[in-house]
Amino acid sequence: MATPADPAPIAVIFESRMGADPAGYAEMAERMEALAAEADGFLGMSSARGPDGLGITVSYWRDEAAVRAWKRHVEHEAAQRLGRERWYAEYSVRVARVLRAYDWSAGEAPPD
Amino acid sequence: MATPADPAPIAVIFESRMGADPAGYAEMAERMEALAAEADGFLGMSSARGPDGLGITVSYWRDEAAVRAWKRHVEHEAAQRLGRERWYAEYSVRVARVLRAYDWSAGEAPPD
Repeated sequence: MATPADPAPIAVIFESRMGADPAGYAEMAERMEALAAEADGFLGMSSARGPDGLGITVSYWRDEAAVRAWKRHVEHEAAQRLGRERWYAEYSVRVARVLRAYDWSAGEAPPD
Repeated sequence: MATPADPAPIAVIFESRMGADPAGYAEMAERMEALAAEADGFLGMSSARGPDGLGITVSYWRDEAAVRAWKRHVEHEAAQRLGRERWYAEYSVRVARVLRAYDWSAGEAPPD
């Protein structure tokens, strides 16, 4: 799971619902994940998609400038366009500032 | 999907990885979702869990007081404890303030 950083990073919460035809989607998603991981200010990413087709991806960034640069990355922009044309029925994006974070692993005491 | 609100709400990003035995988990998760939906200041919730066992739930709240009250809800506290004892291998919680949000549905123009 992604690691919180100080100063508090920015979280980008991307929720999407797939349309009828997922052909080619997995490859694009994998490519975008690899590309984001190379981007300046990238801190981590988690993704889950359930059997109902709702997916949530949360990516973490150093600051808002890094988020904007990733949003405007030319290959990412092409993927966003393709996503609207081919794959997604709907999506939402929320950009949020992390105020606090805590983690727990089996065997540890409760985090608070 | 959850609807953004003005003033900007608080997002609680809960990531979890399941342990070996999921017995009873689905019922508990369903109960917590119903209970949260009745809580003061609750604005919405989205959940996804992939085949690798990583789940992401994002809930949206009116303000930090509502988040704190939900965290301390007696039945929710019992569920958190049970989660650590029985179901989760690890989890993380991030509380974040939503700075901006946009949504897109098929047929609409791009959101920006």
